[in-house]
Parts: sequence; C-alpha cells; structure tokens
Amino acid sequence: MIVNALEKIMEELLDEYIDQFHMECTCPTCRNDVLALVLNRVQPRYVTSEDKITYVRAEFFDRQQMTSLLVSLAECARIVSENPRCDNRKA
Amino acid sequence: MIVNALEKIMEELLDEYIDQFHMECTCPTCRNDVLALVLNRVQPRYVTSEDKITYVRAEFFDRQQMTSLLVSLAECARIVSENPRCDNRKA
Repeated sequence: MIVNALEKIMEELLDEYIDQFHMECTCPTCRNDVLALVLNRVQPRYVTSEDKITYVRAEFFDRQQMTSLLVSLAECARIVSENPRCDNRKA
Repeated sequence: MIVNALEKIMEELLDEYIDQFHMECTCPTCRNDVLALVLNRVQPRYVTSEDKITYVRAEFFDRQQMTSLLVSLAECARIVSENPRCDNRKA
C-alpha cells in the first residue's frame, strides 16, 4: 500500500474551506478538478501505511505550511471556478 | 476519482525492470518503499479518470522522459536495497 498523504489532507481542507472559495459550482467534477490541479502543484508526500498519514498531517499543523497549502488550494479553486468542465454552469 | 497516473506507470516499470536492479530484497515492503520514494521525487501527474492515465502513459513513450523515470527508479531501488526496512536482510 502506498498513498500520497496530501490527497487526504487536501480533501479535508477542501471540505472545510469550500464555502469560503465561493466557487461557481462545487459538483464532484469541479471538486475533483480542484484536487487534481492542486495535487499536481504541491510536493507529494507518499507514505507506505495509513498511520503515517497522521505524521504528515501533524507536520502541516505548522501555521506557515498550512497557509501555503491553503493558498495553493484557493488558487486552484479559482481556476476551476473560472473554467468549469462540468455542465452545471449557471446561465 | 483522482489518481496520480505515475503510480501505475512506476509500478509497471518496477515490475518490468526489477530483476535488472539486483535488489537485496524484493518483498512487498521493499517494493512499496521504492515506489513511495520515487513518487516523492518525480512530478506528480494527477488525472480525474482512468482513461486519462493512458494519455499520460503515452507521453512517457518519449525515450528521454522514460529514461529519466527509469534513472530515478533505479536510484530509489539502490537506496532501498542498501537500507531495507524489512527483516528479510540476508545474514
């Protein structure tokens, strides 16, 4: 088993802050596009067991690290919001 | 659904070339350690559907790109082989 701990961390951040990003659409397609976009921009943190995700998460309790993740996430939410691939675009 | 296309590509490369890396041990722990290590070193390529993995894979048919992946993989196989975390180390 290998997993990029940031997949889970970013997903949790998106859940927590999505309302504050004021995205045009928050459908699964748009959410996945934001996650894929941001995960391609930040340094991956692959681990070989679930409990190691907790260690990585703890590292990001550091305010500065968390802020940099949030800034990247907000930027990607803006990009997807302005260029949605889904068909839910408000007329 | 989001996935780092390189997870699959690197796993296929490891299967294909593992014998040529002459690792001390090729147990699941050592294999996963090599994959986690190399995936933390190469640019992630997250996609939002399985069929997009095929596009990413096609990009790496470019000899130079493939070579650079293989060089990283071989380096990580060497590191893990010299520092195995499993207990199968030959006495």
